[in-house]
Amino acid sequence: MSEPRVLEFRPSAEQFAWTFGGAAPVARIAPGTILELWTEDCFAGRVRGKDDLVSVVCEFPFLNPQTGPFYVEGAEPGDTLAVHFISVEPARSWAASTTVPLFGALTSTHLTATLQDPLPEVVWIWELDRAAGLCRFSARDSEFTADLPLNPMHGTVGVAPANLEVRSALVPDAFGGNMDTPEMRAGVTCYLGVNVEGALLSIGDGHARQGEGETCGVAVECAMNTVLAVDLIKGVATPWPRLESDAHIMSTGSARPLEDAFRIAQADLVQWVSELAGLSAMDAYQFISQAVEAPLANVVDTNYTSVAKLAKSYLPGRTGVMRGSHDQLREIGRAYLGR
Amino acid sequence: MSEPRVLEFRPSAEQFAWTFGGAAPVARIAPGTILELWTEDCFAGRVRGKDDLVSVVCEFPFLNPQTGPFYVEGAEPGDTLAVHFISVEPARSWAASTTVPLFGALTSTHLTATLQDPLPEVVWIWELDRAAGLCRFSARDSEFTADLPLNPMHGTVGVAPANLEVRSALVPDAFGGNMDTPEMRAGVTCYLGVNVEGALLSIGDGHARQGEGETCGVAVECAMNTVLAVDLIKGVATPWPRLESDAHIMSTGSARPLEDAFRIAQADLVQWVSELAGLSAMDAYQFISQAVEAPLANVVDTNYTSVAKLAKSYLPGRTGVMRGSHDQLREIGRAYLGR
Amino acid sequence: MSEPRVLEFRPSAEQFAWTFGGAAPVARIAPGTILELWTEDCFAGRVRGKDDLVSVVCEFPFLNPQTGPFYVEGAEPGDTLAVHFISVEPARSWAASTTVPLFGALTSTHLTATLQDPLPEVVWIWELDRAAGLCRFSARDSEFTADLPLNPMHGTVGVAPANLEVRSALVPDAFGGNMDTPEMRAGVTCYLGVNVEGALLSIGDGHARQGEGETCGVAVECAMNTVLAVDLIKGVATPWPRLESDAHIMSTGSARPLEDAFRIAQADLVQWVSELAGLSAMDAYQFISQAVEAPLANVVDTNYTSVAKLAKSYLPGRTGVMRGSHDQLREIGRAYLGR
Amino acid sequence: MSEPRVLEFRPSAEQFAWTFGGAAPVARIAPGTILELWTEDCFAGRVRGKDDLVSVVCEFPFLNPQTGPFYVEGAEPGDTLAVHFISVEPARSWAASTTVPLFGALTSTHLTATLQDPLPEVVWIWELDRAAGLCRFSARDSEFTADLPLNPMHGTVGVAPANLEVRSALVPDAFGGNMDTPEMRAGVTCYLGVNVEGALLSIGDGHARQGEGETCGVAVECAMNTVLAVDLIKGVATPWPRLESDAHIMSTGSARPLEDAFRIAQADLVQWVSELAGLSAMDAYQFISQAVEAPLANVVDTNYTSVAKLAKSYLPGRTGVMRGSHDQLREIGRAYLGR
Repeated sequence: MSEPRVLEFRPSAEQFAWTFGGAAPVARIAPGTILELWTEDCFAGRVRGKDDLVSVVCEFPFLNPQTGPFYVEGAEPGDTLAVHFISVEPARSWAASTTVPLFGALTSTHLTATLQDPLPEVVWIWELDRAAGLCRFSARDSEFTADLPLNPMHGTVGVAPANLEVRSALVPDAFGGNMDTPEMRAGVTCYLGVNVEGALLSIGDGHARQGEGETCGVAVECAMNTVLAVDLIKGVATPWPRLESDAHIMSTGSARPLEDAFRIAQADLVQWVSELAGLSAMDAYQFISQAVEAPLANVVDTNYTSVAKLAKSYLPGRTGVMRGSHDQLREIGRAYLGR
Repeated sequence: MSEPRVLEFRPSAEQFAWTFGGAAPVARIAPGTILELWTEDCFAGRVRGKDDLVSVVCEFPFLNPQTGPFYVEGAEPGDTLAVHFISVEPARSWAASTTVPLFGALTSTHLTATLQDPLPEVVWIWELDRAAGLCRFSARDSEFTADLPLNPMHGTVGVAPANLEVRSALVPDAFGGNMDTPEMRAGVTCYLGVNVEGALLSIGDGHARQGEGETCGVAVECAMNTVLAVDLIKGVATPWPRLESDAHIMSTGSARPLEDAFRIAQADLVQWVSELAGLSAMDAYQFISQAVEAPLANVVDTNYTSVAKLAKSYLPGRTGVMRGSHDQLREIGRAYLGR
Repeated sequence: MSEPRVLEFRPSAEQFAWTFGGAAPVARIAPGTILELWTEDCFAGRVRGKDDLVSVVCEFPFLNPQTGPFYVEGAEPGDTLAVHFISVEPARSWAASTTVPLFGALTSTHLTATLQDPLPEVVWIWELDRAAGLCRFSARDSEFTADLPLNPMHGTVGVAPANLEVRSALVPDAFGGNMDTPEMRAGVTCYLGVNVEGALLSIGDGHARQGEGETCGVAVECAMNTVLAVDLIKGVATPWPRLESDAHIMSTGSARPLEDAFRIAQADLVQWVSELAGLSAMDAYQFISQAVEAPLANVVDTNYTSVAKLAKSYLPGRTGVMRGSHDQLREIGRAYLGR
Repeated sequence: MSEPRVLEFRPSAEQFAWTFGGAAPVARIAPGTILELWTEDCFAGRVRGKDDLVSVVCEFPFLNPQTGPFYVEGAEPGDTLAVHFISVEPARSWAASTTVPLFGALTSTHLTATLQDPLPEVVWIWELDRAAGLCRFSARDSEFTADLPLNPMHGTVGVAPANLEVRSALVPDAFGGNMDTPEMRAGVTCYLGVNVEGALLSIGDGHARQGEGETCGVAVECAMNTVLAVDLIKGVATPWPRLESDAHIMSTGSARPLEDAFRIAQADLVQWVSELAGLSAMDAYQFISQAVEAPLANVVDTNYTSVAKLAKSYLPGRTGVMRGSHDQLREIGRAYLGR
């Protein structure tokens, strides 16, 4: 194994992409490249204090700035991109969360339209203690504080969509995008089906941590220093984003209503396990039904996202997941971190 | 603390209840009573081998037989019943799972009606190794086997519904019922709002284990020997079932579509944490959004069930959950198990 | 044809039923009986002026009082009850509509739970001009008035449910119940599958008129003088309520989310037309897809209700719908009205 | 009033657009222009006989070819485009309908994923009798035929989306697009909010007729000769497509689940009527609840579409809808047809 190429990229304000598809690549990379990236937070860095209301300081649709897209040489429709998160580190000592009028799970929205008044718009600034691995919540209306574990992750990772489409960076769908799952953390490989030549990979929307479902619509939003290793798996199609960690394989689905997101993820995992373990579809259906975990990702975005998660230990001796891409990328990551 | 009364009850075939509400109590118990119960599996024990198809051997609506109901003395509408699971032990060395025509998440159903043919009807018999804490899946169409951890739980625990209703034992709703959450295991206390005098508690539908979402509609179904401690919390209303373990508090919601089940559980947890921690509703909304876990229970029943789960460690020093009922019942349980 | 028996029944306040199933019959009737009924409005007559807020004057669950149930002699599970509406006449010169906190399509609800404040609770009294066939809306906050056509109908018509259940009179489901479709008007026959001996028919919830969807959750609610002719079709099962008028056949479905209600109604109509016209399922699917009307009934109740409606003129020469029950009942109705 | 300019445009196969947004305009037009257009059917004309299966003869994503887009001079974000359908005439003596694997309301789909086999793929060729105003269904599996009234309409009419997006011509959303409502017929004006300079209007997907809901996913698909009159209403924003005929005003909503499409359309109509009649929001809510019709458009596309429809006769003397644009365009249309 030769030394992987390393590309550092820190976008200027003009270099952000605001969509999946439709933006010119910021760089071309070969499969095997390590990307040292900086990502801005979902507010494009404009929410910096308690008075910075999203409706005032942000400018729609300039939310969820994407670092990228990167053109991956050789990537063609029908291939799979493997995006391994070597490290995801908050780039600031604070992070911001907010409510946004008519956005979130516990409010009416532009789609779940009611005649009620919107909830108040509030900003919370979280303090991050990166050494201790904690982030601190401070209530706005009382003295309550609480320390929660840091769990840095990316809300968005995606490629250009199929069907000639260009989608907002706020959208999760079959191309990945704004899935907002806490599973997208360091040590994990995300597999994305390639829809256009070069794939056009981008990431953004770092979260210092996030609850499952992202109930209020906004996580603990933070700029990130993130290192990726990117691989290309030729000739393998991936209809919906899949994830792999050392311990689990995961399928995702993004749709509305939420049961359809669940169905997509579960059916994809049934199909995947059927192939890995040589099971009939009905046997895999039964096996998954008893073995799966189903942590919700988001119940707030354009599509809701559900994850179907299986412990690899339940499939002893079953190798060959995505041609071993995760294990190889994990090695590259370990070598990089051990420099 | 005086010695709790202990009532053993093993229903005969004629003594099962098939509904929540509408059935005469099998016994009256005082708050504080320990119940030593036996529950039959969801098939009423009729699926015993691979040829025992549900559509042949079972008789609708005689599914999910309930052990109970128990009339709890002093229970009135506006009170809360605390049902603590001291132990949940599989009563057989095997368990059964099946597909059922037009039932489950990855098939059309009588409600999600399509013109397609139903999936095949298949039975799987799981071997339970109670000493090792494992259950063994054996594929029907190949030689594949896998051992999964036992995680015994009850699919149903509920009281009589409000609004003069009687509901099938297959239904989860505000009265509890067929929630099918793996969180309903030994060591957990379930809080149920009382709707009628005596509450009319029953349990059933034991699962040797179950995946989150119960994808195929049927878990690893098993008769159980289960010990409960029952407490009554006067003057405290509980609109939707809540759970408490040593480590977590949990709210549940049951509805369709699945996002409504999610909303109910999350809104209830926001309300609950707001009271426990003296937080404003908006502060609790933000806090929960970042701290919550959201494991799915079922995405197959009459209503889908979602759980909102919060680590108690995130609320240091906040005591008084349900007047300390869980801690007291836990002690009773420990004393019982240590006899 | 002999003279049909006529039974007049005007319930006293103690004689109302509040559920489908679970209530003792008020009378036994033979198939062929004409019922002259009086029904109270959904508020049990308690909303009589602008200050009569539902949350103050009504007592849950005592809403949607049912006139009935009637035990139909000879009715057994697997049969179909044909309920023909001979006339539906408002019994008062006014009707009431309201908003109800956390109920309706354009507000969050107990199921679509949000943290927003409920909408205001408002009462509107509509004046009915029965001679002119009009009802008058008078705005509360301005001088605006408008006259809309009277279109008297019943929100509820149903029988006892299957599966040992008892359901609130606010629920629509396979047993009929609170379907809230404007199609349930004079001249229409409603076919209901029988689930228990005697069927246990009841009706209520008269509307002077109603928009499709019943958006705010409450129609122009009015006591009614209603005349029914009841027939029994032995040995014909009806899984979901069907309707027939002189011009149309209609299937209904009640479920959440709304697309499932749509699917049920459409699939039932495909099945029905397939039988009537001797079409294959795929041919009937195509034919219905191009020919159907799909007026919404309610998008506010426990289940939402969708109607699939086909002009009989599109099926020339296809007779034998429900053994001609509608035509026979229509004749009985004409004879009754022409006395 | 000067003579309107008339532009005839019949696209060659290379000139079709396959998206809303993202395609270069085929022409620039001034407000007030009459467009004489030809549109190809949704299959791009490739389904011409019973053996032309969509999965064989069509090439994804090249479906729903759009005639356009037209750049409307002076159109800017915040304006409204008024698109009046002067005439919609089938361009052939036949039309085609099909099933498409895993597409439609009565089948599982890529989003409502199940493990069942897809329905069979079938083509039906409908004969059009334009003189008699009829189209003839011929069953594939029997001798059954039926004549249904022609009701020519366009499934798609839309402008470029907001938020930098490009959407497939199969998508309905706030920009219009593939709404598939039978209300989009000759004599109707469609109001579309402008999101980008020039608006970029296109139409396509002509249907000889369609049932409400478009149950099987495909209407009676036909090439069309269609004449439009296009107007620009400066400074008036239209969040979701609205329609106006001589007799009705209509709001639309497109979303999943279907109740959200219903909510959007109803809330928009409440807002619209509130402005037209000077009603408070609560008064408009009550009025619409009793007066509205709610014909479904599609329950099959990426988003489902619901229509909220109000008779103008219920709002006597209320003028000024969209500055009288419909009436003016109707006059232009009458003059054009009377040439």
